[in-house]
Amino acid sequence: MTYKNEQLHEEKVFKDPVHAYVHVRDRVIWDLIATPEFQRLRRIKQLGTTNITFHGAEHSRFNHSLGVYEIVRRIIYNFQGRPHWNNDQRLLCMCAALLHDLGHGPFSHSFEKVFKLDHEYFTQQIILGDTYVNKVLERVSPGFAQEVADVIAKTHSDKLVVSLISSQIDADRMDYLLRDAYYTGVSYGHFDMERILRVMRPIEDQVVIKSSGMHAVEDYIMSRYQMYWQVYFHPVTRSAEVILTKILHRAKQLYESNYQFKLQPTHFLTFFSGDVSLEEYLKLDESVVHYYFQLWQEEEDEILRDLCERFMNRRLFKYVEFNPNKQIGDLMRLIQLFKDAGIDSDYYLVVDSSSDLPYDFYRPGEEEERLPIHLVMPNGTLKELSRHSDIVEAISGKKRTDHKLYFPKDMIYAIQDEEIKQDIIGILFSKERI
Amino acid sequence: MTYKNEQLHEEKVFKDPVHAYVHVRDRVIWDLIATPEFQRLRRIKQLGTTNITFHGAEHSRFNHSLGVYEIVRRIIYNFQGRPHWNNDQRLLCMCAALLHDLGHGPFSHSFEKVFKLDHEYFTQQIILGDTYVNKVLERVSPGFAQEVADVIAKTHSDKLVVSLISSQIDADRMDYLLRDAYYTGVSYGHFDMERILRVMRPIEDQVVIKSSGMHAVEDYIMSRYQMYWQVYFHPVTRSAEVILTKILHRAKQLYESNYQFKLQPTHFLTFFSGDVSLEEYLKLDESVVHYYFQLWQEEEDEILRDLCERFMNRRLFKYVEFNPNKQIGDLMRLIQLFKDAGIDSDYYLVVDSSSDLPYDFYRPGEEEERLPIHLVMPNGTLKELSRHSDIVEAISGKKRTDHKLYFPKDMIYAIQDEEIKQDIIGILFSKERI
Amino acid sequence: MTYKNEQLHEEKVFKDPVHAYVHVRDRVIWDLIATPEFQRLRRIKQLGTTNITFHGAEHSRFNHSLGVYEIVRRIIYNFQGRPHWNNDQRLLCMCAALLHDLGHGPFSHSFEKVFKLDHEYFTQQIILGDTYVNKVLERVSPGFAQEVADVIAKTHSDKLVVSLISSQIDADRMDYLLRDAYYTGVSYGHFDMERILRVMRPIEDQVVIKSSGMHAVEDYIMSRYQMYWQVYFHPVTRSAEVILTKILHRAKQLYESNYQFKLQPTHFLTFFSGDVSLEEYLKLDESVVHYYFQLWQEEEDEILRDLCERFMNRRLFKYVEFNPNKQIGDLMRLIQLFKDAGIDSDYYLVVDSSSDLPYDFYRPGEEEERLPIHLVMPNGTLKELSRHSDIVEAISGKKRTDHKLYFPKDMIYAIQDEEIKQDIIGILFSKERI
Amino acid sequence: MTYKNEQLHEEKVFKDPVHAYVHVRDRVIWDLIATPEFQRLRRIKQLGTTNITFHGAEHSRFNHSLGVYEIVRRIIYNFQGRPHWNNDQRLLCMCAALLHDLGHGPFSHSFEKVFKLDHEYFTQQIILGDTYVNKVLERVSPGFAQEVADVIAKTHSDKLVVSLISSQIDADRMDYLLRDAYYTGVSYGHFDMERILRVMRPIEDQVVIKSSGMHAVEDYIMSRYQMYWQVYFHPVTRSAEVILTKILHRAKQLYESNYQFKLQPTHFLTFFSGDVSLEEYLKLDESVVHYYFQLWQEEEDEILRDLCERFMNRRLFKYVEFNPNKQIGDLMRLIQLFKDAGIDSDYYLVVDSSSDLPYDFYRPGEEEERLPIHLVMPNGTLKELSRHSDIVEAISGKKRTDHKLYFPKDMIYAIQDEEIKQDIIGILFSKERI
Repeated sequence: MTYKNEQLHEEKVFKDPVHAYVHVRDRVIWDLIATPEFQRLRRIKQLGTTNITFHGAEHSRFNHSLGVYEIVRRIIYNFQGRPHWNNDQRLLCMCAALLHDLGHGPFSHSFEKVFKLDHEYFTQQIILGDTYVNKVLERVSPGFAQEVADVIAKTHSDKLVVSLISSQIDADRMDYLLRDAYYTGVSYGHFDMERILRVMRPIEDQVVIKSSGMHAVEDYIMSRYQMYWQVYFHPVTRSAEVILTKILHRAKQLYESNYQFKLQPTHFLTFFSGDVSLEEYLKLDESVVHYYFQLWQEEEDEILRDLCERFMNRRLFKYVEFNPNKQIGDLMRLIQLFKDAGIDSDYYLVVDSSSDLPYDFYRPGEEEERLPIHLVMPNGTLKELSRHSDIVEAISGKKRTDHKLYFPKDMIYAIQDEEIKQDIIGILFSKERI
Repeated sequence: MTYKNEQLHEEKVFKDPVHAYVHVRDRVIWDLIATPEFQRLRRIKQLGTTNITFHGAEHSRFNHSLGVYEIVRRIIYNFQGRPHWNNDQRLLCMCAALLHDLGHGPFSHSFEKVFKLDHEYFTQQIILGDTYVNKVLERVSPGFAQEVADVIAKTHSDKLVVSLISSQIDADRMDYLLRDAYYTGVSYGHFDMERILRVMRPIEDQVVIKSSGMHAVEDYIMSRYQMYWQVYFHPVTRSAEVILTKILHRAKQLYESNYQFKLQPTHFLTFFSGDVSLEEYLKLDESVVHYYFQLWQEEEDEILRDLCERFMNRRLFKYVEFNPNKQIGDLMRLIQLFKDAGIDSDYYLVVDSSSDLPYDFYRPGEEEERLPIHLVMPNGTLKELSRHSDIVEAISGKKRTDHKLYFPKDMIYAIQDEEIKQDIIGILFSKERI
Repeated sequence: MTYKNEQLHEEKVFKDPVHAYVHVRDRVIWDLIATPEFQRLRRIKQLGTTNITFHGAEHSRFNHSLGVYEIVRRIIYNFQGRPHWNNDQRLLCMCAALLHDLGHGPFSHSFEKVFKLDHEYFTQQIILGDTYVNKVLERVSPGFAQEVADVIAKTHSDKLVVSLISSQIDADRMDYLLRDAYYTGVSYGHFDMERILRVMRPIEDQVVIKSSGMHAVEDYIMSRYQMYWQVYFHPVTRSAEVILTKILHRAKQLYESNYQFKLQPTHFLTFFSGDVSLEEYLKLDESVVHYYFQLWQEEEDEILRDLCERFMNRRLFKYVEFNPNKQIGDLMRLIQLFKDAGIDSDYYLVVDSSSDLPYDFYRPGEEEERLPIHLVMPNGTLKELSRHSDIVEAISGKKRTDHKLYFPKDMIYAIQDEEIKQDIIGILFSKERI
Repeated sequence: MTYKNEQLHEEKVFKDPVHAYVHVRDRVIWDLIATPEFQRLRRIKQLGTTNITFHGAEHSRFNHSLGVYEIVRRIIYNFQGRPHWNNDQRLLCMCAALLHDLGHGPFSHSFEKVFKLDHEYFTQQIILGDTYVNKVLERVSPGFAQEVADVIAKTHSDKLVVSLISSQIDADRMDYLLRDAYYTGVSYGHFDMERILRVMRPIEDQVVIKSSGMHAVEDYIMSRYQMYWQVYFHPVTRSAEVILTKILHRAKQLYESNYQFKLQPTHFLTFFSGDVSLEEYLKLDESVVHYYFQLWQEEEDEILRDLCERFMNRRLFKYVEFNPNKQIGDLMRLIQLFKDAGIDSDYYLVVDSSSDLPYDFYRPGEEEERLPIHLVMPNGTLKELSRHSDIVEAISGKKRTDHKLYFPKDMIYAIQDEEIKQDIIGILFSKERI
């Protein structure tokens, strides 16, 4: 028996509130979970700042990664013996599922934006670099790590395997919807995953859905839609995100202007300079970020200090609806008024936009090509989902965007100059904004 | 309208996975939640190292504190208009419920043990000291903070109020059982809280239970029993706890022996010296601990480095059953053998004992006097629970203790001297230990 | 204290799997539940033949009626003290909620169709006639029964009260979606009712929804849509319904042709003759129907016997898709072929159509005027739901209809004449029907 | 491929609220479910009169039987490949599981008591007699029906197979606890079945439990205990049961005294005469019983009429605690007083006793020998559960009995003779009865 096929002496299970149990029989999977790079995901929250709004959402990416693995394990279990399914790809699928989020850092969204990083790049680095994860994978067979990396990068030649991990109805999305709904406690996000797993069928280049399961898929897409607007894009969460982003900006700017930090921000230096090594990247977990933000509450720089204090103690920015097409003049005015009042609008007046495309059919050549979901009809033909489902057709390809303008209400009310203050308040609040 | 009675313009709710919603109408409660001292609880896990075993258990003390508040709010709501209930105590009860865990630090159990701290002392300090929390409470009325502190300390003269917060069936216990069961995903820990709330009755000096609700209380006590043995005392969790404790011991010892840390452990200094100020205490959250443990993975000292690496990457100690009455000789032998092998048994051979008393009736004069649960019978008389319930009687007052011996299996198997190695292995594993 | 205001000595509760508890404090409600006319609802299934497909769906209309009452009780509880809400209408709302389905008989849909009955007419009769229910209501105040009847008939002058009981988001619909989902076990049908109750607001002539709760309402409408297509219109359930309808037709036809039943079908006589008295109507519960169907399995008449045997033992008709616009020729051919084969196509070849309109805005003058759901915006204006929700807009007013052709496959395969048999099979199965 | 091994073209599933899905792959199972004898179980409630107290408990024995089958299917799935497990017994186990309750009639408990019947006898008859079920079983192989019957009767030589179906932790009990808890909505009755299934191990003559799963078994035993006292023995349910039993007694007595029923009670005649054929037995479902009870509400005999009216309209008897050791004198007095008041105490004064033994170890020679639950320890030895579990030890072998005295309160308050009335009331209510 090779390492590739090695089974644990006895099946191990993790108690999981979403899938009841996560089952591990393969030595490879067990060993991957035990690597420091994978254990590190325990110190990175799945939903970043969402717990500021939904206090239950404190679960980590470790939690989610196990869940994605478990779903893929169950899908493959159902696939065994079916035409088109090559069971030699079993371990590849499960490893890719387990490791797909490995490159995430803390508060990825903000860090990637400010420091021009890409978690997918780091996922590749961790899998292919000098890491424990790489060693485990290469023990399977030379080149296996590269295969796993290719599946995650969607460049692997086996399109069926890729679609298991990345499609509009993949194990990743199914797990995060169910898991995030569970931890936040919202009633959206539920759908009949067991049913979807039962109607998934492998064909040569993708996973398709038996048409009798269409309604379960509709339900899944609606769940996704609701979770985006009710949870992921919640305006209060975005307020914390806005502040976080501004903290990173400020720290970088201070660094670039040779500001003397009370304690040298060692962990951040390569992020500031734009030359992050894998080793440095792996050290930066959420604890480290919190540690610095706590320190920075006592920094000399007033803006950095204030923003950190806001973030750590949840003194968030308020927001109003903002229409970028009609209100650009208002925004210009506000920037001037902030300047007059001595408030730095770069940090204290922020337009944030969120947008989501709940489902789309294939539009070749567009920025991000999305593989559509195909139903397989009783007569064996394929049909793109939105052509069969009224509900999905109705929302298909419709991007919805929400713009908000964020600002510190307390600072504005504290402006000494009564006229400036009233002008700002007038612009922000007195209009009919619905 | 005074601050004491001030209601929010509109009721605020927190979505909570356990209680559906946490409702806040009182300005005082809202303001307490917004204080930095309370927000800090977001950065302290409710169950310390339990997430090492049950990955779902990543919820914070913030989460739990809101839950306890909500339960007390509902109890009081039911009490309104009942004899013996003085609704003037409403705000006092709710504040005490919300703040009862305020003094917890990260991994309280280990920190308290190593540094001789007491979270209850710090709860008092935070409520009575120069804090945001104190300011909010004193705005209610001068002396109100002291009242809240007294309720939490169980010294308040209103015994009914005290028993709401601290008894063998209080809001604290009900919340943590339900919440910890929810986040870990175990099926133990569930009981019909709504039913218990419906059968609670205030009398002059305590909360009692209508006898028709006895079975729900039995179920609650069984849940508690199961959660202790299945979750809280899980041997793998205790392994992480053992390592954590040893890290703190080692760091303290190094400090005392004037070891030069690569980075001065500023946050820990007063803990080492035994003179922790409130300000220092409040700064030490879980992020800070993790930050240092990460740094210490690169320390010169081999023991500190190894233990931190184990803790952060989940390379835990293994364990065997240990009977302190019969096996003290084995333990002595092992200590000698470890010494011979060059392994410091102070850090690498640890007996850990857990014990629980699921319920007890009143035993005056004993170490910790426990208030029994009283049933109120149809004819109005009181009856102590264990006299009416066979199940409770069966487990009442029976302390159960579990002893385990922890050690690093990998180190032992790496011992060069084959004889010593086999001797150690022989003692640890070859006996029938069941 | 009058009977109208009389409270029970102690609140009574019913344990309910959907709402946890149903709470009763009012003597009037308690007395209504105890009437024989209301207890009779225990012997009528909420979902008629659905348990043939979803075996869990065995719950009764009694079950559902308590649930609707409970929801209205909670809505009213939230309304207390709000502008536009007249708490004098409290008891009226709760009685109407409890009694709104009182006139349902067993398998209402089929009975109403075959015997030209109307359960709403009987609801009125029971409330206004010489019944226990009427006596209880008239004790509240003379004319109160008429008021309750008017609310249920939607003719009451208080439009706000009417909209609580009958609208596109009323207590009836919320209860049946949640309840039917619970008992069938499907994952559709769930939505956050607690949230919807929190955002309901009374205005002068209707209940409206705070716009911040729009997503919960979207979720409710999607649940409704899914339950209709996944559960209520399930083709297997409809097969049982088709057979049931044909049994009633056959029995009526036999009666009209002076057929001698082995046992005189006493309970059915007035149904056959079209002159059902209230007393007769109340006697006909599901047990009685089952009793006769069991007897009729031993009748002389072959068709009645066969259909009853099919219904009782679940030997259902099979079905194929049927397009009434394109396939009328096929249907004509089949009727002729059935005749040739000696099978009575009146009973053994049935087109069944189901259609649903998940939500509609107001279209004055149309057959059934539906009151739209209105959102109340932050600035106080009202906005019709589909104008604010993309999802609802997408499905608003879109009636979807499904046609199926039902037949006994076993009978067809048993046709002796091979040519006729193959012709029938050819028409039914050989086409591409997707 | 023989019928025995024949698999369905595609797996069929039943949506089940308790087990999510019931899976059927074997043609034999599918055919058994389709038999009229099995479909008949849809018309027999699992919990008889319990829905009078817990309105949700309207589920049928059909429902439960599918559940037991599904649990056995899962257990066997886990057993595959394990030592001691002979997979040839697979179909035998599943058939026995599915059919174990086949002989139940409506309200079995009362019918068996009054008419001296035994549902186990009828289960044997249905399996071995001239039935559809028998035909399906005999197609598997000649003698297979007898094997199934032997497993259910616990006389089969394969003790391992028997213990899967009938032991103190069998599939039957696990399903009914979970299912009855689900439908009633009570929070008792939940335990971690998935965990128990994972720790079940086949040995030569029984199913044992890995000791690491002991706590899950404790939880199961406590659930059973709570369900008995909270649900199954609920005094209100027993009141309905008492009345039902008295109806049957009265009807039998009238029959024996040649009373002329308005409609000849055809279905009951052989029950009255004590000579029930299988054919007659199968016809008597709950609908038929309800049909007669409705008719009997219009009978001449006052007692029969009154009792039926009480049963159908839920006008139940009230109850008080009764101590048969101390209160036999009171009972004698009451009987005399009832006689004086002209109330037939045979029908209107009933002592009802319920008792339960939550778990017992093996006591050879006792009335009903119960097989104990054995744990298998890490070293492979077996240990009886109560020797390892404090909780189980505490309740093991302790029979608990509850006695109540039932009577129609309304009749007593309607007694004309004031002295007799007060005497009765005095005995029933004025004592301290707690």
